[in-house]
Amino acid sequence: MSTTVETRTAEFRDYVKKITSYTQALNVLYWDKATQAPRNGMDARSEIIGTLAGEQFKLATSKEMEALLTELSEPSVLETLDEITRHSVLECKKEFDRNKKIPADRHQEYVVLTAKAETVWEEARANNDFSMFQPYLEKIVNFQLEFIEYWGHDGKNKYNTLLDMYEPGMTVDQLDPIFATLREKTVKLVKAIADSPNKPDTSFLTKNFPVADQEAFSRYILEKIGYDFKSGRMDRSAHPFCTTFNPGDVRITTRYAENDFNSALFSCIHEAGHAMYEQNINPELLFTPLCDGTSMGIHESQSRYWENMVGRSLPFWNHFFADLQKAFPTQFEGVSVEDLHRAVNAVTPSFIRTEADELTYNLHVMIRYEIEKGLINQTIQVADLPKIWNEKMKEYLGVEPPTDTLGVLQDVHWAGGMIGYFPTYSLGNVYAAQFVHVMENEITGYEELIANGDFAPIREWLKEKIHQYGKMKSPRELVQAITGEGTNATYLMNYLEKKYTDVYKL
Amino acid sequence: MSTTVETRTAEFRDYVKKITSYTQALNVLYWDKATQAPRNGMDARSEIIGTLAGEQFKLATSKEMEALLTELSEPSVLETLDEITRHSVLECKKEFDRNKKIPADRHQEYVVLTAKAETVWEEARANNDFSMFQPYLEKIVNFQLEFIEYWGHDGKNKYNTLLDMYEPGMTVDQLDPIFATLREKTVKLVKAIADSPNKPDTSFLTKNFPVADQEAFSRYILEKIGYDFKSGRMDRSAHPFCTTFNPGDVRITTRYAENDFNSALFSCIHEAGHAMYEQNINPELLFTPLCDGTSMGIHESQSRYWENMVGRSLPFWNHFFADLQKAFPTQFEGVSVEDLHRAVNAVTPSFIRTEADELTYNLHVMIRYEIEKGLINQTIQVADLPKIWNEKMKEYLGVEPPTDTLGVLQDVHWAGGMIGYFPTYSLGNVYAAQFVHVMENEITGYEELIANGDFAPIREWLKEKIHQYGKMKSPRELVQAITGEGTNATYLMNYLEKKYTDVYKL
Repeated sequence: MSTTVETRTAEFRDYVKKITSYTQALNVLYWDKATQAPRNGMDARSEIIGTLAGEQFKLATSKEMEALLTELSEPSVLETLDEITRHSVLECKKEFDRNKKIPADRHQEYVVLTAKAETVWEEARANNDFSMFQPYLEKIVNFQLEFIEYWGHDGKNKYNTLLDMYEPGMTVDQLDPIFATLREKTVKLVKAIADSPNKPDTSFLTKNFPVADQEAFSRYILEKIGYDFKSGRMDRSAHPFCTTFNPGDVRITTRYAENDFNSALFSCIHEAGHAMYEQNINPELLFTPLCDGTSMGIHESQSRYWENMVGRSLPFWNHFFADLQKAFPTQFEGVSVEDLHRAVNAVTPSFIRTEADELTYNLHVMIRYEIEKGLINQTIQVADLPKIWNEKMKEYLGVEPPTDTLGVLQDVHWAGGMIGYFPTYSLGNVYAAQFVHVMENEITGYEELIANGDFAPIREWLKEKIHQYGKMKSPRELVQAITGEGTNATYLMNYLEKKYTDVYKL
Repeated sequence: MSTTVETRTAEFRDYVKKITSYTQALNVLYWDKATQAPRNGMDARSEIIGTLAGEQFKLATSKEMEALLTELSEPSVLETLDEITRHSVLECKKEFDRNKKIPADRHQEYVVLTAKAETVWEEARANNDFSMFQPYLEKIVNFQLEFIEYWGHDGKNKYNTLLDMYEPGMTVDQLDPIFATLREKTVKLVKAIADSPNKPDTSFLTKNFPVADQEAFSRYILEKIGYDFKSGRMDRSAHPFCTTFNPGDVRITTRYAENDFNSALFSCIHEAGHAMYEQNINPELLFTPLCDGTSMGIHESQSRYWENMVGRSLPFWNHFFADLQKAFPTQFEGVSVEDLHRAVNAVTPSFIRTEADELTYNLHVMIRYEIEKGLINQTIQVADLPKIWNEKMKEYLGVEPPTDTLGVLQDVHWAGGMIGYFPTYSLGNVYAAQFVHVMENEITGYEELIANGDFAPIREWLKEKIHQYGKMKSPRELVQAITGEGTNATYLMNYLEKKYTDVYKL
């Protein structure tokens, strides 16, 4: 490496350290706003978040950044860089190019539009009035179509350009067969479940569970599965989330419903799944753009794995059932571990994605995927969404939302311009089942470990194969390296068929 | 106002909004570090605080700022500006000039030195080894002497330049007679108290007070005196502090000692005194450098007023004694309100300033004032500090610290380069007594209001006379406008003589 390159490398590392410092600070400001901040301080808080985000955007798109990236991404230079710097340069260049291709005034208009659209969406949802939101969504779709032209596309499907933002390398060509498998098998399974005379009794899950007891039990479980409270904390917020400041400070939030055992605990495990990913990223990646999950789908594979494939499994409850009965003696009186396992895996087609069970969840996602593809390929008009939404709900889930509030207006994503994000939720499930298949082969006594509450070997495996890399490996590289194949929905469907055959005695 | 001036004014207001956004963000990052952050995240947190503080410093000393200030501080322009902008320009200019006069490399060396000195001071204090700290303090004093030459001084006393940083306009000529009054009367009073046969019984203050009960009672009292929890919150930290993000979010922290009733509650009231100042600043000053207390001394007048002149007064406890007995029935069994009032006002000369009683506190401050003056005027050598410290303790308080840990090494201020700060602690007491004297005349039934727990008229008075202005009025202007005179220690001494004559039946 020449002296000049060495100097420029150091400058670049300093520069991205500065940019990632803003990310960390913004995450703290946001977390504090969502969990701690008093009501009267909210407006000023929002303003400083906007101001600092603007400063960060300026740094990320500056002439200084451009010069550094131009120099260091030169192939003859790039190959001489250490691995972390090389990947950082490529990551920043991708981001820089994406930002730079949009004319500044159009970007500004778009930012204003989505900020406004989120407010309008809230009102529209509250008033069950899609027509309020429609013109905003139309503009957002048009902006996305315009941006896709600036960003470029692969000539196969314009929607691929959007998918790539959330799941690098993902395409419609890969997703269509995945969702075809999910659709075919899930719809059949949902039907069989509906027809089964062996429905689980879920009534004990809606007894009274004092919030303090739920919180204590959730903390206990998280400590046991290995969420590190010395590198994080758990608080309350209106909507559960996980946020990372650095690998030594990854926080999760939850909310408690006093009459619903099925909500907070599994939500905590879900967020802890996200958090354990970030807590176990190689600390050398701190202050680089690589110190993050590699994609939304891989991130979701970790949360869904812990929530459903561990947390809703029979071995898991075989281990923790005594603790559960000790924590809630009256609520679970006369309930067996099999009763509990069946109850927390009950399937009920419903309107709201975020409240859906493990099985029907993917159908909710699929509806959004099909609609997004249609919007971006201009085969679906925004104006027709309520009708299309309800038709698809009827077709796949067998239920039709009585209002748009319970239908097409339920998610904030589109109002914020996030088109292409939804498929990653199902990809998370698909990846997780693929990983479990490998774990069962590679980790001796995999199921016994869970039944013994010995999660360390599993965590170690996940850290070694996935977590440590952060963004050093793409989702495709990870999946290929771990499973020896590409994305494959068969494992998920096998897992689901096995689980529900058991739960519903099919 | 010309169009150019209008444009430049808007640019300036935007620019200071950006700078103050960093202040708010840094305060959140610091607060979170001190109260919430998990251990493993601390190092990365310190680094991002350093990075963002550096970014803010760059903004505050940039060529852009210089150009704006040069243009807007031109007298013919300045007089056309609205009041808030005018004061903001002057405040920024003062800060800018102060920063710009120091050569960048010297400033950088100084920042590194004080960061290192704080760490060394901690070790020196832990090991009772002044000689470890001595070379650092010598360098810090030399830096201050060098900086004073850059900053300039009034030709009367170089120490004035440092005083002005914490208490604008304050000088040795004003402080010397104040401390002379404090010294003369306090030493006499301490002697009389020591000789009094009527010592209060304080034994019940060190019974067991469960932390949760102390916290609940402290919250109750703060709500009653008017700290607005919708614009703040109270948490725990190693050292109590108050921090402001914006007037709608002013937070305080405290710590609890299970066997000391005299600690947490009064510390909470103290911090709430600071906080109520900031909560009541005119919201139009948000995002300007004026949205802050006008000086350390005026700030301390508010905390000391609520802590001692309200919180340790007999009328206050006449009102709250029943609540106290309800909260701690066994601990205060057989204790009368007079007993309590006498106990919380007990005077005991001791080694540590932060634990000192209301009376001897000023003697601790005075010792530091005399030493600082001597260091800056080069009549005292750093090497002699342990000896001088102990002599002065003996002379004024009648006790001699057995170790430097309990003596000259107890405070962090000098390690951080804060020379000139200490006098503001006593100025706070002096101002507070002056304000009380005026309140007694201007607020009908002043003492009865406290005895009735009706603090609204007092808060309104403080808001109208002091709080609302932020930095729009200098401390001198405030004191003159409120009291019709300058700083005068007589009121404080009259108040203290009256209180202790009562408590010790002198």
